Amino acid sequence: MKVAIFFGSKSDTDVMKGAANALKEFGVEYKAFVLSAHRVPEKLMETLHEIDEEGFEVIIAGAGLAAHLPGVIASHTTMPVIGVPVNAAINGLDALYSIVQMPKSIPVATVGINNSYNAGMLAVQMLSLKYPELKEKLINFRKDMKEKFIKENGEGVEL
Amino acid sequence: MKVAIFFGSKSDTDVMKGAANALKEFGVEYKAFVLSAHRVPEKLMETLHEIDEEGFEVIIAGAGLAAHLPGVIASHTTMPVIGVPVNAAINGLDALYSIVQMPKSIPVATVGINNSYNAGMLAVQMLSLKYPELKEKLINFRKDMKEKFIKENGEGVEL
Amino acid sequence: MKVAIFFGSKSDTDVMKGAANALKEFGVEYKAFVLSAHRVPEKLMETLHEIDEEGFEVIIAGAGLAAHLPGVIASHTTMPVIGVPVNAAINGLDALYSIVQMPKSIPVATVGINNSYNAGMLAVQMLSLKYPELKEKLINFRKDMKEKFIKENGEGVEL
Amino acid sequence: MKVAIFFGSKSDTDVMKGAANALKEFGVEYKAFVLSAHRVPEKLMETLHEIDEEGFEVIIAGAGLAAHLPGVIASHTTMPVIGVPVNAAINGLDALYSIVQMPKSIPVATVGINNSYNAGMLAVQMLSLKYPELKEKLINFRKDMKEKFIKENGEGVEL
Amino acid sequence: MKVAIFFGSKSDTDVMKGAANALKEFGVEYKAFVLSAHRVPEKLMETLHEIDEEGFEVIIAGAGLAAHLPGVIASHTTMPVIGVPVNAAINGLDALYSIVQMPKSIPVATVGINNSYNAGMLAVQMLSLKYPELKEKLINFRKDMKEKFIKENGEGVEL
Amino acid sequence: MKVAIFFGSKSDTDVMKGAANALKEFGVEYKAFVLSAHRVPEKLMETLHEIDEEGFEVIIAGAGLAAHLPGVIASHTTMPVIGVPVNAAINGLDALYSIVQMPKSIPVATVGINNSYNAGMLAVQMLSLKYPELKEKLINFRKDMKEKFIKENGEGVEL
Amino acid sequence: MKVAIFFGSKSDTDVMKGAANALKEFGVEYKAFVLSAHRVPEKLMETLHEIDEEGFEVIIAGAGLAAHLPGVIASHTTMPVIGVPVNAAINGLDALYSIVQMPKSIPVATVGINNSYNAGMLAVQMLSLKYPELKEKLINFRKDMKEKFIKENGEGVEL
Amino acid sequence: MKVAIFFGSKSDTDVMKGAANALKEFGVEYKAFVLSAHRVPEKLMETLHEIDEEGFEVIIAGAGLAAHLPGVIASHTTMPVIGVPVNAAINGLDALYSIVQMPKSIPVATVGINNSYNAGMLAVQMLSLKYPELKEKLINFRKDMKEKFIKENGEGVEL
Repeated sequence: MKVAIFFGSKSDTDVMKGAANALKEFGVEYKAFVLSAHRVPEKLMETLHEIDEEGFEVIIAGAGLAAHLPGVIASHTTMPVIGVPVNAAINGLDALYSIVQMPKSIPVATVGINNSYNAGMLAVQMLSLKYPELKEKLINFRKDMKEKFIKENGEGVEL
Repeated sequence: MKVAIFFGSKSDTDVMKGAANALKEFGVEYKAFVLSAHRVPEKLMETLHEIDEEGFEVIIAGAGLAAHLPGVIASHTTMPVIGVPVNAAINGLDALYSIVQMPKSIPVATVGINNSYNAGMLAVQMLSLKYPELKEKLINFRKDMKEKFIKENGEGVEL
Repeated sequence: MKVAIFFGSKSDTDVMKGAANALKEFGVEYKAFVLSAHRVPEKLMETLHEIDEEGFEVIIAGAGLAAHLPGVIASHTTMPVIGVPVNAAINGLDALYSIVQMPKSIPVATVGINNSYNAGMLAVQMLSLKYPELKEKLINFRKDMKEKFIKENGEGVEL
Repeated sequence: MKVAIFFGSKSDTDVMKGAANALKEFGVEYKAFVLSAHRVPEKLMETLHEIDEEGFEVIIAGAGLAAHLPGVIASHTTMPVIGVPVNAAINGLDALYSIVQMPKSIPVATVGINNSYNAGMLAVQMLSLKYPELKEKLINFRKDMKEKFIKENGEGVEL
Repeated sequence: MKVAIFFGSKSDTDVMKGAANALKEFGVEYKAFVLSAHRVPEKLMETLHEIDEEGFEVIIAGAGLAAHLPGVIASHTTMPVIGVPVNAAINGLDALYSIVQMPKSIPVATVGINNSYNAGMLAVQMLSLKYPELKEKLINFRKDMKEKFIKENGEGVEL
Repeated sequence: MKVAIFFGSKSDTDVMKGAANALKEFGVEYKAFVLSAHRVPEKLMETLHEIDEEGFEVIIAGAGLAAHLPGVIASHTTMPVIGVPVNAAINGLDALYSIVQMPKSIPVATVGINNSYNAGMLAVQMLSLKYPELKEKLINFRKDMKEKFIKENGEGVEL
Repeated sequence: MKVAIFFGSKSDTDVMKGAANALKEFGVEYKAFVLSAHRVPEKLMETLHEIDEEGFEVIIAGAGLAAHLPGVIASHTTMPVIGVPVNAAINGLDALYSIVQMPKSIPVATVGINNSYNAGMLAVQMLSLKYPELKEKLINFRKDMKEKFIKENGEGVEL
Repeated sequence: MKVAIFFGSKSDTDVMKGAANALKEFGVEYKAFVLSAHRVPEKLMETLHEIDEEGFEVIIAGAGLAAHLPGVIASHTTMPVIGVPVNAAINGLDALYSIVQMPKSIPVATVGINNSYNAGMLAVQMLSLKYPELKEKLINFRKDMKEKFIKENGEGVEL
């Protein structure tokens, strides 16, 4: 089970680390590519072809401004594509609208602004359809998250 | 392969039909439930438990206004949840933000405002990770879509 | 007279202190809980059941992003629920819309973005319907506020 | 138990009927006043004084555009004031912000755009703090709502 | 010729200084009052009565959030009222909408967000209708502004 | 006392009638010009020169979209300019921002979206600084408005 | 001199006619293509290659929702690309942001929402750099526009 | 080939440098003018006349707030005008709407908020219609950009 993470500029590295962190927690293999839909469109298509051959199964793509990267990728593959709107202007609303408002037939599974961790988590959920061990890990993750949350926050806090 | 479609009110039926249409095109079995996160929360949780037992694999949830349904569902399952913002006020921006801006660890895969067809398509893409016959259908769907598009729109149009 | 204050993450503590401050000024007992609607939904419901048994009368709930906490609480209780939109992204508009745009029959009494002090004040006003001593305190509070305001700002200021 | 409903223009009558409908369902007495904060400020204050004398306990106020009515009322009373943003321009966002963003110490309990029914429901919840019979009615209302919802929407719908 | 400047909190002093600066440049007498529409409504009305008696001719009012101050003042006077939206949240859009979207018959002359200098300038323009010396000063101000602008910015700049 | 009303296209006639109506109620003479800042800039400047010579005292200008007309006029005159944002797209927010956000020193007195009646009323208030008979009319107008409002809306309405 | 007009769906034909109308007025040859960036990306690139070979000089592209078409075209050509945001949801703001907020180095010359006529006009202005006869026509067009505007709107209108 | 760069205030110098940088990369001569549409309208028109005489071919204009400069320039010339919205308030949305929403017949070619580099690039693309050497440089620029991008970002990055 392999996930490809794309983003258009090294300046988005920090925002996109969350996706890698989520995948690491679940032991899902991933590879990250800095590839711009507008600057190197041919290289992007070439890479999409390669990862398809190499058996990648889910794609995560983060972008800011007129964030075309996730949608352009979605138009060249039938793998599920998860889009992360990156806040680079107007609070990230430009990126959010550019990613989520895809036309009929070519969806992008959009997560919250700058919330690449959730993109990784969503990729795990998708892969868990096929890989029962991930399903189990997800159930345990939730259980642990709950226990940890309750332990940390106790029965009531001082305010 | 089975998809559960949830929405909070019969008034959303027309908007949500698109999801069913996409699933039908790919021969994916689905069942639709009208269940409100706010009005019948216990019944919702009960149904979520049932569909989990019955082997459903992906959930689509549509909602308008303070559209909590997809997020509430996501908090009770590890299945991937696809959210459809329904336009019931302020052009659907309230629903979009209420669905896409989920906190860390509990993602909702959000599609465009009123675009439930893309929710169905995204469910098919997710299921295609596990079911190779769906993968093949998706590739053919894209091929047919392209041929049909080019045939219908020809080499150039009158303006 | 007892007020329960809920918020979904310790990172909201500073914003939510205002609610406690207002309640302290009026001598209203309160208890604060860090409980997430999405991460520990069962614990949340359990706690809601407990505070109902213990005779709490009003609930204040603060949340950011897709701020479901106040609405989810409102769906499990008939106590009045006061919602505080916390600014965690896009200037808090996501939280505001997610809290205020509740569907018919399940209202959340929404106050301004990050304005938890007003949530406390509103809780006092609600409780004053039942407790005449609070009514009196409110009238005195207003009187004092006016006197203090006029004293501090005098007859005119230098500009 | 008496609720006063204010709105600034007869053109808001239809939107504001929802508040009356909710109150009627719970047998709560109400009186409606068309009074503008900007056109008849003295008459408004006079009326606020009168309803205070007459023992009204909660105020609902609806307004559109620069919707000052709820906030102006709140500045003249310590009763809880519930504000209904009426959509008269820019999807009601002007009214929403004008009502919900009140300064420290003078809250308005804001409900959704045009959602006066929820204002009535919230008034009932507030009054139920004092009147146990309303509390009971609220619990029954929720129970009936759930039963009716489930009966109407069954186990699953055709899509 | 006298202008009254109102604002609701000492924290707005810096933003409102611009109005005073513009008035000083034209030798227009002014007096500034910190008076909140919501906290000290009676004192506000009293002061409005006084400045009317004292022959003030134009009012400038600045406010943030649910910025009711300019509109409330306008409802108690027939003097022209100039409103300054102060940015205290959501980039000042709440204040802008609360000030500019006044109902029929009670206008507020709104200037840009935080732009109190223009409020002072607008007051001078209004007063120049009556006071020919101000008209002359305005014409000279424009002439000087143009000369200064051209001198400072020359025939072309380095970039 | 004379007011010039400008707007950029005959299609805005209906929206701008409100300004004329307000001026008629107060017996203020006006003249209306259809002149576009972008299509006939020289003619606009010529006309501004003429109305200055003819003793006009206040200018009202309405525009939609990138609504430059009021600001361009303000840059060529020292008369007070009142701007009316006309809703021709995105709910009139483009026009509102284009009119109200003027740079330092060149203000436009902005009224609500499509609210040209208030522009006329504001012109009357400005002129009343100079013409005592208008001041008196304004006071009577308010008095009549109040009486009429109270008569029409009575002591309470059916809901 | 030849202009290529692209849009992604026949449903945009009416909005895009304006571009053709402007080009016709100036005798500029054009050809229109219905080609979607997401549905037929390969065909789009093929056509872009062809029009480059055939000597087209300027491209106009209209799109709604997550309007990637103009930006995707711009990434495959060095011709100037003019983008027309088409209103298909949230007043066209999604399309506007998706078109105008292009990353560094790959601009799209954006015009107003649904304003394809201006896209045609802008194409003419660009071509007039090279073709002096177009420059002359533009100067005459402006002259005629002014004369016609003044004739139609006269010296003043009835209001 | 000469480009004129206009902006309304020296405070915009940093934002506008990007335009000069892009032009320098392509060896396109430019001259920069600080000229405000509102403060020195006559000087602006005079300068527009001069640059027309001197054979300038494209104009770039940057402005913030009610950003009229690009549109006012466009109304006085038939040269293509490129507009740069400068973020000075509300995230630059006021400037974006004021620049892009021009009326029929007078377009402004708008680029992204603060993205003056793209304005320079767009000017080069326009000039390349006439100057074949620029066309060649553009093709090489893209080739170099792609090579540099791929070299810098390699086959995959660490995350």
